[in-house]
Amino acid sequence: IDTQKYFVVSLNNIGGCHGSTGPTTILSKTKKPFGSSFPEVSVIDWVNTQYLLMNYLKIECWEMVAGGSLGGMQALQWAISYPNKIKKAAVIAASPRISSQNIALNEVAREIIRKDENFHDGNYMQNNTKPKKGLKAARMLGHITYLSESNMSKRFGRRLQDPVTKLDEKINYEVENYLQYKGEQFSETFDANSYILMTKAMDGFDPAKKFNGDLVKCFKKIKARLLIASFNSDWLFPKEYSMEIQIAAIKAEIKSSYIELEGDYGHDSFLYYSDEYSTALKSFLENNE
Amino acid sequence: IDTQKYFVVSLNNIGGCHGSTGPTTILSKTKKPFGSSFPEVSVIDWVNTQYLLMNYLKIECWEMVAGGSLGGMQALQWAISYPNKIKKAAVIAASPRISSQNIALNEVAREIIRKDENFHDGNYMQNNTKPKKGLKAARMLGHITYLSESNMSKRFGRRLQDPVTKLDEKINYEVENYLQYKGEQFSETFDANSYILMTKAMDGFDPAKKFNGDLVKCFKKIKARLLIASFNSDWLFPKEYSMEIQIAAIKAEIKSSYIELEGDYGHDSFLYYSDEYSTALKSFLENNE
Repeated sequence: IDTQKYFVVSLNNIGGCHGSTGPTTILSKTKKPFGSSFPEVSVIDWVNTQYLLMNYLKIECWEMVAGGSLGGMQALQWAISYPNKIKKAAVIAASPRISSQNIALNEVAREIIRKDENFHDGNYMQNNTKPKKGLKAARMLGHITYLSESNMSKRFGRRLQDPVTKLDEKINYEVENYLQYKGEQFSETFDANSYILMTKAMDGFDPAKKFNGDLVKCFKKIKARLLIASFNSDWLFPKEYSMEIQIAAIKAEIKSSYIELEGDYGHDSFLYYSDEYSTALKSFLENNE
Repeated sequence: IDTQKYFVVSLNNIGGCHGSTGPTTILSKTKKPFGSSFPEVSVIDWVNTQYLLMNYLKIECWEMVAGGSLGGMQALQWAISYPNKIKKAAVIAASPRISSQNIALNEVAREIIRKDENFHDGNYMQNNTKPKKGLKAARMLGHITYLSESNMSKRFGRRLQDPVTKLDEKINYEVENYLQYKGEQFSETFDANSYILMTKAMDGFDPAKKFNGDLVKCFKKIKARLLIASFNSDWLFPKEYSMEIQIAAIKAEIKSSYIELEGDYGHDSFLYYSDEYSTALKSFLENNE
């Protein structure tokens, strides 16, 4: 995206832990953090808060809303909720609703966090502690699902970890060491309540629900053009999810294109640059036929 | 298997927790359980102990060694280690070596267990406690990988859990409730050290390693006929793994057949009866061309 031509607005979601109000925010009344009392939020809530920001910034209409994964869900929800306020939506590595396998993986991650002895039902800040072990293991699990199997095989295969750089004596393989390292890093910087809240928002996303599960009906009022993109190595949100959006878009007679991109990083591919990916986004943004 | 015609010998593995000597066994010297001091074991160790049992039982030659998953690995190892002591090997839902993704998933499960406050470096019995929370979450994760996505979708989809039968107020979906229940059950009956030890044995299985990774060379001395079977819904040990065994068998010029079976339970399918599965095993066992 050429920032000489377009203003880019990028924001944190309510409930997160890197800027916006979230579970770590101190309530002025009680002088205590929200902790587990922070309300559940949904993708629709996020889009609605973004709409408030849009009005505050006096923006009439977005040229494009773009996002990957949970961000792709928000882009799609924008097109549904505010058809007159958005021209294009780039829905990348997303899904019109996640599968029970995805929900199950999210639930295991949450279970791991909740059962950390330092979680204290979410009120760990008041106890001056942090459920780091739980957050670390949850992220290790997440990390596996974000990567593709082929990528893991190429990077690690079955190579044994060099004993000198082992993070723990119980580790045998490089891939274990890598996950331990990544999980540890994450647990230092992320908030456990935010993690739970965000995965719950992902589980709950289901715009077709109000239309008795009929995605086509739900899409009928969309006016924006859609770009729907998936990555070939993504097994968490495989191309079938994106194709479901595309097929519903065709049936609803709205403008949309679907593209399957090459990507070597599984679900995480949307975070990495490639010429193909960049070209697809750029021409979608600049082409107004 | 017609037990009027064949004697079936079925045994627990050393290191397990349902019979054979394992981490919960009390050492006569110290009057304490092995706990984490129980040595690491490998698939080769298991096959060797089974060979001792074979001699003890005065069995000259197995008609067939059959097993699924870690059991399939043992069947294959039997054919490699003792070519004159086995006529047939049924290698079901197995792999000649597991992928880094599998290792990573196993490591996350172990991490969850080890970080349970009640784990005490594996010496929880001495502390009169049990890392049940960790074992439960590890099993929940395992359970997802054993099931197929289609099976989960059919059984649970995105149905919300009935509030009356909720196991925990934080649960939203049926699939979450089911996993919590299954995990809880497992954590009551299984031993955490055994779980760690068994997944390590699975990670370590790699018969081709001694042959510089050349599976064909490794298979050269096999005399047994092989039946190699995978299940169409198994994503943990997909058919590619079984086909790798079959292709190496063909190149090594040993007798083998490969079959992909229908199964609706993912990796767990090998535990369930189907006519097709039963017929395949039966005709393999009874046909001596």
